[in-house]
Amino acid sequence: MLRGTDMMGCITDFFTYETTKSVVVKSWTIGVINRVVQLLIITYFIGWVFLHEKAYQVRDTAIESSVMTKVKGFGVYNGRVMDVADYVTPTQGASVFCIITKLITTENQVQGFCPEVFLVQSKEMRGSSRSSPHVPGVMTGKCVSFNSTLNTCEIRGWCPTCLSPCVCVCPSPMMEVENFTIFIKNSIRFPLFNFTKGNFLPTITSSYIKKCNFDPVNNTYCPIFRVGDVIRFAHQNFSTLAHKGGVIGIKIGWVCDLDKSEDSCNPSYSFTRLDAVSEKNNVSPGYNFRYAKYYMMENGTEYRTLLKAYAIRFDVLVNGNAGKFNMIPTLINMVAAFTSVGVGTVLCDIILLNFLKGAEQYKAKKFEEIASSVSHGNGFGRSSCSQLAVKQDEMRSTDSGAFSIGQEL
Amino acid sequence: MLRGTDMMGCITDFFTYETTKSVVVKSWTIGVINRVVQLLIITYFIGWVFLHEKAYQVRDTAIESSVMTKVKGFGVYNGRVMDVADYVTPTQGASVFCIITKLITTENQVQGFCPEVFLVQSKEMRGSSRSSPHVPGVMTGKCVSFNSTLNTCEIRGWCPTCLSPCVCVCPSPMMEVENFTIFIKNSIRFPLFNFTKGNFLPTITSSYIKKCNFDPVNNTYCPIFRVGDVIRFAHQNFSTLAHKGGVIGIKIGWVCDLDKSEDSCNPSYSFTRLDAVSEKNNVSPGYNFRYAKYYMMENGTEYRTLLKAYAIRFDVLVNGNAGKFNMIPTLINMVAAFTSVGVGTVLCDIILLNFLKGAEQYKAKKFEEIASSVSHGNGFGRSSCSQLAVKQDEMRSTDSGAFSIGQEL
Amino acid sequence: MLRGTDMMGCITDFFTYETTKSVVVKSWTIGVINRVVQLLIITYFIGWVFLHEKAYQVRDTAIESSVMTKVKGFGVYNGRVMDVADYVTPTQGASVFCIITKLITTENQVQGFCPEVFLVQSKEMRGSSRSSPHVPGVMTGKCVSFNSTLNTCEIRGWCPTCLSPCVCVCPSPMMEVENFTIFIKNSIRFPLFNFTKGNFLPTITSSYIKKCNFDPVNNTYCPIFRVGDVIRFAHQNFSTLAHKGGVIGIKIGWVCDLDKSEDSCNPSYSFTRLDAVSEKNNVSPGYNFRYAKYYMMENGTEYRTLLKAYAIRFDVLVNGNAGKFNMIPTLINMVAAFTSVGVGTVLCDIILLNFLKGAEQYKAKKFEEIASSVSHGNGFGRSSCSQLAVKQDEMRSTDSGAFSIGQEL
Repeated sequence: MLRGTDMMGCITDFFTYETTKSVVVKSWTIGVINRVVQLLIITYFIGWVFLHEKAYQVRDTAIESSVMTKVKGFGVYNGRVMDVADYVTPTQGASVFCIITKLITTENQVQGFCPEVFLVQSKEMRGSSRSSPHVPGVMTGKCVSFNSTLNTCEIRGWCPTCLSPCVCVCPSPMMEVENFTIFIKNSIRFPLFNFTKGNFLPTITSSYIKKCNFDPVNNTYCPIFRVGDVIRFAHQNFSTLAHKGGVIGIKIGWVCDLDKSEDSCNPSYSFTRLDAVSEKNNVSPGYNFRYAKYYMMENGTEYRTLLKAYAIRFDVLVNGNAGKFNMIPTLINMVAAFTSVGVGTVLCDIILLNFLKGAEQYKAKKFEEIASSVSHGNGFGRSSCSQLAVKQDEMRSTDSGAFSIGQEL
Repeated sequence: MLRGTDMMGCITDFFTYETTKSVVVKSWTIGVINRVVQLLIITYFIGWVFLHEKAYQVRDTAIESSVMTKVKGFGVYNGRVMDVADYVTPTQGASVFCIITKLITTENQVQGFCPEVFLVQSKEMRGSSRSSPHVPGVMTGKCVSFNSTLNTCEIRGWCPTCLSPCVCVCPSPMMEVENFTIFIKNSIRFPLFNFTKGNFLPTITSSYIKKCNFDPVNNTYCPIFRVGDVIRFAHQNFSTLAHKGGVIGIKIGWVCDLDKSEDSCNPSYSFTRLDAVSEKNNVSPGYNFRYAKYYMMENGTEYRTLLKAYAIRFDVLVNGNAGKFNMIPTLINMVAAFTSVGVGTVLCDIILLNFLKGAEQYKAKKFEEIASSVSHGNGFGRSSCSQLAVKQDEMRSTDSGAFSIGQEL
Repeated sequence: MLRGTDMMGCITDFFTYETTKSVVVKSWTIGVINRVVQLLIITYFIGWVFLHEKAYQVRDTAIESSVMTKVKGFGVYNGRVMDVADYVTPTQGASVFCIITKLITTENQVQGFCPEVFLVQSKEMRGSSRSSPHVPGVMTGKCVSFNSTLNTCEIRGWCPTCLSPCVCVCPSPMMEVENFTIFIKNSIRFPLFNFTKGNFLPTITSSYIKKCNFDPVNNTYCPIFRVGDVIRFAHQNFSTLAHKGGVIGIKIGWVCDLDKSEDSCNPSYSFTRLDAVSEKNNVSPGYNFRYAKYYMMENGTEYRTLLKAYAIRFDVLVNGNAGKFNMIPTLINMVAAFTSVGVGTVLCDIILLNFLKGAEQYKAKKFEEIASSVSHGNGFGRSSCSQLAVKQDEMRSTDSGAFSIGQEL
């Protein structure tokens, strides 16, 4: 029988409920402070955490995106009409592409020996066959006459040579680029919700697409962008960019609340200059690169046209996130909100026990002192230190709030 | 001496321990509710937070990845055999590449003057020399005869012209692409743990690589993908894609638990169509781009072949994260779990003090009232409002749980 | 009047303040433990959360970045001088680029019929016109003599054929690549703070740029990198990489504390081999790709030079985050710190109520028992189970801490 009773006792002991014993202070001052603090905390949770930060939603930030671009427009440059196959590189129409605005061309280069055009450092370098990054080829060490008055170093490489700052020809940029249009097709997907959308909104018709140009007031969803507009929206000057080259970012942001209708999940476009440092620093301004077109003569000799291209590079950057109602974050944040309301007591306790009239009496009620049974008899002495912390100074009273365990033993 | 005693008092006051006074309710109802709520909270923490979300691990999400791709296969197109150098662009074998399925070719274009092929808007535009994005060159304003029955505008640019919808020749796609294979070599690194792995598992041998094709059942780790399979896994139709072009995402996911053996950290492949909007919207379906091959005549005149390529673009997207046991998150989450168990009291208190038999008596025990010493004597009046909140209605009893401070003064 | 009094009662009931009743234990042992635990928690919050993790800051991790690269140097390969237009691809100077170190060239290929060079599997495959990825063209099914002693399959495609392992010519790599320099221009922006900076620090002058090479000790901010150095910093061997190809990551990290001066927000460079798996696994070592240069004969026949390029690919990876003081995270984390100090009581309670001398007396003071009014009279029996949990064993004492509600009724 005893064993059964014991076990029963264990079980009944287990199924008890333990809650804190509370002290209720009926004071207008602290009551109002308490409620105001609680109101602030609730306001913070409802206003900021739930309404603004949408803490009741799960959020998918792993946006999948695909960007296709197509540039349109014709320019005249060096007496030639340039079309998209001539001035856009890479040609694949991906999210990063360059529109060439200026070309410095050196035609009919063949492998051979020729005099170097630069005269800088000619004296020091003569006799050295080490290649230098500032000389357009490998130096042979010979000295040859460039023209009747000038001797220079002979180099081996693609001849004739031409390097910037170019003595050959420095043309002006192709100003028609300003009127070129960039067509951007962007599809996104939020894999968590299997939600797919594109920047071609259902409201866009074939005829609208043919005419529209993006502007942030009237045509916020037109996926066709005038180059000049994009550069203006990024607070840049087209002429400077066309001369020196640069990198412009076209950012597409998708911030979607999937609890609302699908129509309210729309792209927002913004524009910025990405190589902002090129503006500030004069050491290496702008953006340019070299490439070559290779040809072959009938006799099998390869020759090439070397091109130094100044270009405006466009980076289409897509970012975004989507949220949708979900039980788990809602519950967790509601519990967090409820328990946080209790945090106000820390502040109120400090006020109650230190700054309010009758603080000593509140302390006496809130704190119940137990002297250590070990140090019983000569336990703790009296202290006269007044500290701000939430601590009880000693008190002797007959109420149950303060007595020594010693009396019980 | 006094000073020493004072300081001693301060120190003893400081080294006290303050804990809440608790009320233990021996009731089966609330006891069971309490334990069930606690059990739910513990289950949530152990099951979800620790086992499912692995909160005991530090997580590295900054995966470093490198992708190399290689396409193999031969197709016959326009009477020519096409190999990888012909149909893959860009050629570098990076994570994004296009397989060209259809080519519209305009050969032997030279800079010059020629009649425009399109007849649309010929009337309105005649006499205007402004370049339009729908006309393949700069209009000269002259009117020329295209053939015996038809007059059209003269343009300056690359001649002869051809633009889609093409009147020249609209060929069918290269259907052999379906049997091409894509070989993907992917290395990843988690810098936080200095852990490196690749999608070439150690179990893969040279002979296996020569024969295998990825399928999600039997060859889940074979790094060679048939184009037709990839398109089928993405729930697309090869024939439609080959005609119009499109973008397919090959996603490689690395979710690794580094507390387990290295062998259990394996890639998982998934496939999706990234330009899903192209399917829905007819304004700009598919994916195509223009590029040119440049040649030079003996006399130095440049000519070119303009190509409009319809292609399937493949984007290899790598994502992943790895976790490993770490003391700091383990401790933080264990503390969070322990303290969260106490959250159940909020619910239990509401039940105990409002819905249980004898609620009034529980209230009397839980709450101890202190009337404000300022408003002593005429403090708060009696109230008859019954609120759900965890509040004590007044009670007058002789037990230590409820008495007025006024008696002490 | 009564209604007014009732409402007043409601309001006064509402503006009360409820705080927990506490028990203060004056024991050196538990007092010291309590303070030490609190000290640890405070140290954790101040040292780790605030000082190390900078929890008082809002953090912007959505770094915007733009990378431009430029390679310089000349190499001699196959009797030709190679410049940047010859060995860098893609040419645009973006964040990913390849420096070609070795080229296997098959010149003057035209579309036609020719004998296959490989002899492997010739017997089994004869008679099959199916294209195989290991044969460089479409098999015609005919058998032709390759030379006087050897018969092989005829294929249709680009002829003559050459495929690796190449029987034509396997040259050594261009060793000058080691001395090439990579110039990296990187601009970043933290959109949240509208903070822009570049890796061209204001202290860098034109003359410094002309001479400097990055090294992690003396020239930590020089944006010019010798290829050989980069490979050494990534713990790789240049000669092996040049032979087989590979992928090197140049990582630029921007971790900025914007509460400090702008000058302390500087890039840090690190180097790693990204295709580490290529080292371990011999199935597909290194990095190479095929591309072609297309030419046209006078009679309009296209011919091409097929190139198999072994290259070192460089990926410039930019990551970073910036923090700046903000009230909201500071407040939230301070509240979290304050409330977490109370967490120590869980541990102290366990010690106090179970392991300390006089634990029974502490229990008697901490817990106040209420028997369920429902099971009044025969409530819970005595239990003899001793559990570690923070539970009260029964006690009979005359103090207010333990009495039955029944007596009150």
